[in-house]
Amino acid sequence: MSNRKQLKFGALIHGVGGNVTAWRHPEVPVDASVNFAFYKEQALTAEAGKFDLVFIADGLYINEKSIPHFLNRFEPITILSALAAATSHIGLVGTLSSSYSEPFTVARQFGSIDHISGGRSGWNVVTSPLEGSAKNYGKTEHPSHDERYKIAEEHLEVVRGLWDSWEDDAFIRNKETGVFFDPTKLHRLNHKGKYFSVEGPLNLARSKQGHPVIFQAGSSESGRNLAAKSADAVFSGADNIEEAKLFYKDVKDRTAAAGRSRDDIVILPGISPIIGRTQEEADAKYEQLAGLISIDIALQYLGRFFDHHDFSQYPLDEPFPDLGELGSNSFRGNTDKIKKTAKENNLTLRQVALDSAAPRSQFVGNPEKVAGLIQQWHEEGAADGFIIHAPVPSALKDFVELVVPILQERGIYRTDYEAKTLRGNLGLSIPANRYTAVELNS
Amino acid sequence: MSNRKQLKFGALIHGVGGNVTAWRHPEVPVDASVNFAFYKEQALTAEAGKFDLVFIADGLYINEKSIPHFLNRFEPITILSALAAATSHIGLVGTLSSSYSEPFTVARQFGSIDHISGGRSGWNVVTSPLEGSAKNYGKTEHPSHDERYKIAEEHLEVVRGLWDSWEDDAFIRNKETGVFFDPTKLHRLNHKGKYFSVEGPLNLARSKQGHPVIFQAGSSESGRNLAAKSADAVFSGADNIEEAKLFYKDVKDRTAAAGRSRDDIVILPGISPIIGRTQEEADAKYEQLAGLISIDIALQYLGRFFDHHDFSQYPLDEPFPDLGELGSNSFRGNTDKIKKTAKENNLTLRQVALDSAAPRSQFVGNPEKVAGLIQQWHEEGAADGFIIHAPVPSALKDFVELVVPILQERGIYRTDYEAKTLRGNLGLSIPANRYTAVELNS
Ligand SMILES: Cc1cc2nc3c(=O)[nH]c(=O)nc-3n(C[C@H](O)[C@H](O)[C@H](O)COP(=O)(O)O)c2cc1C
Ligand SMILES: Cc1cc2nc3c(=O)[nH]c(=O)nc-3n(C[C@H](O)[C@H](O)[C@H](O)COP(=O)(O)O)c2cc1C
Repeated sequence: MSNRKQLKFGALIHGVGGNVTAWRHPEVPVDASVNFAFYKEQALTAEAGKFDLVFIADGLYINEKSIPHFLNRFEPITILSALAAATSHIGLVGTLSSSYSEPFTVARQFGSIDHISGGRSGWNVVTSPLEGSAKNYGKTEHPSHDERYKIAEEHLEVVRGLWDSWEDDAFIRNKETGVFFDPTKLHRLNHKGKYFSVEGPLNLARSKQGHPVIFQAGSSESGRNLAAKSADAVFSGADNIEEAKLFYKDVKDRTAAAGRSRDDIVILPGISPIIGRTQEEADAKYEQLAGLISIDIALQYLGRFFDHHDFSQYPLDEPFPDLGELGSNSFRGNTDKIKKTAKENNLTLRQVALDSAAPRSQFVGNPEKVAGLIQQWHEEGAADGFIIHAPVPSALKDFVELVVPILQERGIYRTDYEAKTLRGNLGLSIPANRYTAVELNS
Repeated sequence: MSNRKQLKFGALIHGVGGNVTAWRHPEVPVDASVNFAFYKEQALTAEAGKFDLVFIADGLYINEKSIPHFLNRFEPITILSALAAATSHIGLVGTLSSSYSEPFTVARQFGSIDHISGGRSGWNVVTSPLEGSAKNYGKTEHPSHDERYKIAEEHLEVVRGLWDSWEDDAFIRNKETGVFFDPTKLHRLNHKGKYFSVEGPLNLARSKQGHPVIFQAGSSESGRNLAAKSADAVFSGADNIEEAKLFYKDVKDRTAAAGRSRDDIVILPGISPIIGRTQEEADAKYEQLAGLISIDIALQYLGRFFDHHDFSQYPLDEPFPDLGELGSNSFRGNTDKIKKTAKENNLTLRQVALDSAAPRSQFVGNPEKVAGLIQQWHEEGAADGFIIHAPVPSALKDFVELVVPILQERGIYRTDYEAKTLRGNLGLSIPANRYTAVELNS
């Protein structure tokens, strides 16, 4: 297993960009979000950099105001499976909504990717912030934020239970005797809960890593509690080191309070490094990206967090409007923060909008500066590692070619994969099979 | 587009075998059903034989009596996606149940495989014969056979509607002007039906082949009608040429009656050829396989069609028992036929059981004999092509190496792929986008 004191890295592959105007950058292929060659190349770049994982985000609702990447993109299960065949070491983590899926299918699909990849899969459990999702799934209403997290908790419990259907030594497969399996090592979950009733067993064995790695990306109270109770890793947003430290400590404390070890959870803030050979070159790259954003587009992007609210109705240079409860049933973690920051700093709507759409600027500089910041965040307890969200494809390549070697030289990042599984590389242990464990204890 | 008068071939990859004892054959890797290297090798063999497609079957319920391949196998969406990355020409068709899935997710997943593979995906719409499936999906009851087909019809209609969300020229992607798409070419389905309500639009464009190819494998009245109305291809079972001709004519007639051309549907019976250099060698291979089946196992296998009915309670050498309605809400096409054949031929339970579990024997022989039979079925209107269900892995290789060249020499089978898409190779046209079509007509 890997050294938990070393950095971990993931690469968020976001096609034409998570940033609303990144697709206009000269370097971005305009069809990247549905271009398999593009995804494969990004994944192989990350694998060359010995990254732990690639990460695929997702959403279940679009409209005319959605950002370009969201309009037309690969579905995560399919692109992760394809990348499993195209890579050999890197972990494959994707988002799937617990509010709009069936545990039996989810357990099979992530379990199956885990078998195809030899133990490299991970599930980012999200509750689906966008209210419109309900209408694509025949529901009259999107469950409330609290209820979504209750559903998520039960869903995940069922999926985990299904993953344990077969004990690891259940398959005998003796051609002579004709005995294929030992029926005493096959277990029915018989789950009957508030939201799900699932009998089992699953028609799939556990993989080398036991269970796929569970990610959580929610930042609200409920999101943090779900992570603390049940996740192996957290993908967080972080604007600065102080905020990241508070988040890190908070989630580790909650994890300990939930009766787990602080090392049982890996915290990986998402960052968007922009690297130049010199600081000036890096700044110029940043300005090129920032220059692609207009105020109209920024307002539209901001609106998305508030359930596609139309911000063009407010004056731009007056204080950020009072929105009441708007947004709190959607991306609550994000909207609470936007409201709070605007109020505390007395920001105008223009400032808030441009700031929300702008490329992040904390990790802009030459390779030594970026490596130094990463080391600082790591050493000061702000992160166990990072998810690199490259604002343009070359930024991932720059990071791998220019920053990774510095971190390796400093002895804080692997020079080769330590393990064959994602759990192994992340330094997480293999969960015991609940049925086998009971037997051992009894 | 391909020549519709030429043969089409698919390969059913069935891990440790669709036959209940195939896994005991010396040549079968005992973990084949979850072994990606095995699936990849089979797919590449089929691709070397210029096959149209590989086919992945599926099921949503297992118990202690399920056959080995079903107990622990890849989920179709994941293995098809992985094979998309590992192959370059062959079509990728998989089973997914319309009774236990959401159209929005199904449209995304098959649509996404279609993009990853460059237009090679296909969906085999099944209604899930096994009653136990309901218990894995929180349902108190498995819908009746009739209702399942009604659900299937509406489900498929929704999926097809979602696939048309974006007109083919909707994406402008002009970096200069900043216009990513034309909102007048994005369409909401706004479906409100008996079983599904789905607003749309889908967050995915159409692929090169317009829609993934739709397969149907049901053999009952309802199954045939669904195929005639909505499918591009039928995967059928066929014990002999007479039966196959009747089925072929029946489905083509129904298709014409539904207002479509007889060429709009491709009929592909599943066959299990066993090839030897001589007839004796082929017969010996057949006997080796048949010898792996015991009467106990045959009874268990038979029971599966009748919702895991326990046949060991009846005397073996008396006439096949009267089962009343048993089985008619499950694999109705199969169970009706078993009951009818047993009655007409006055068969004992032992005969019925061994016959149902035995490897098929119609295509056993040397390469010339098997090629001749294939040509005969094709010329006499029993099939547009075949799905090769190799009883052991080498049987697929034998078919590709020994039979395919004969068919190519006779000019009735391609020597190279005619098209880049599965539709193109199968000789099927690209469905017009329903919204674009309306505009053209108006
Ligand atoms: C780095 C990061 C990645 C996220 N990825 C996704 C995603 O792929 N899909 C999604 O629906 N939500 C995603 N979210 C949103 C979260 O799931 C969550 O809804 C949001 O952070 C608001 O937190 P809350 O729901 O706990 O209030 C992501 C959030 C963060 C911070
Ligand atoms: C060649 C063939 C392949 C089939 N593959 C599947 C499959 O993968 N999954 C499944 O649930 N049923 C499968 N079926 C079963 C059919 O979907 C159908 O339930 C069965 O043939 C009974 O017909 P009916 O449902 O129309 O009565 C297959 C049937 C045939 C003949």
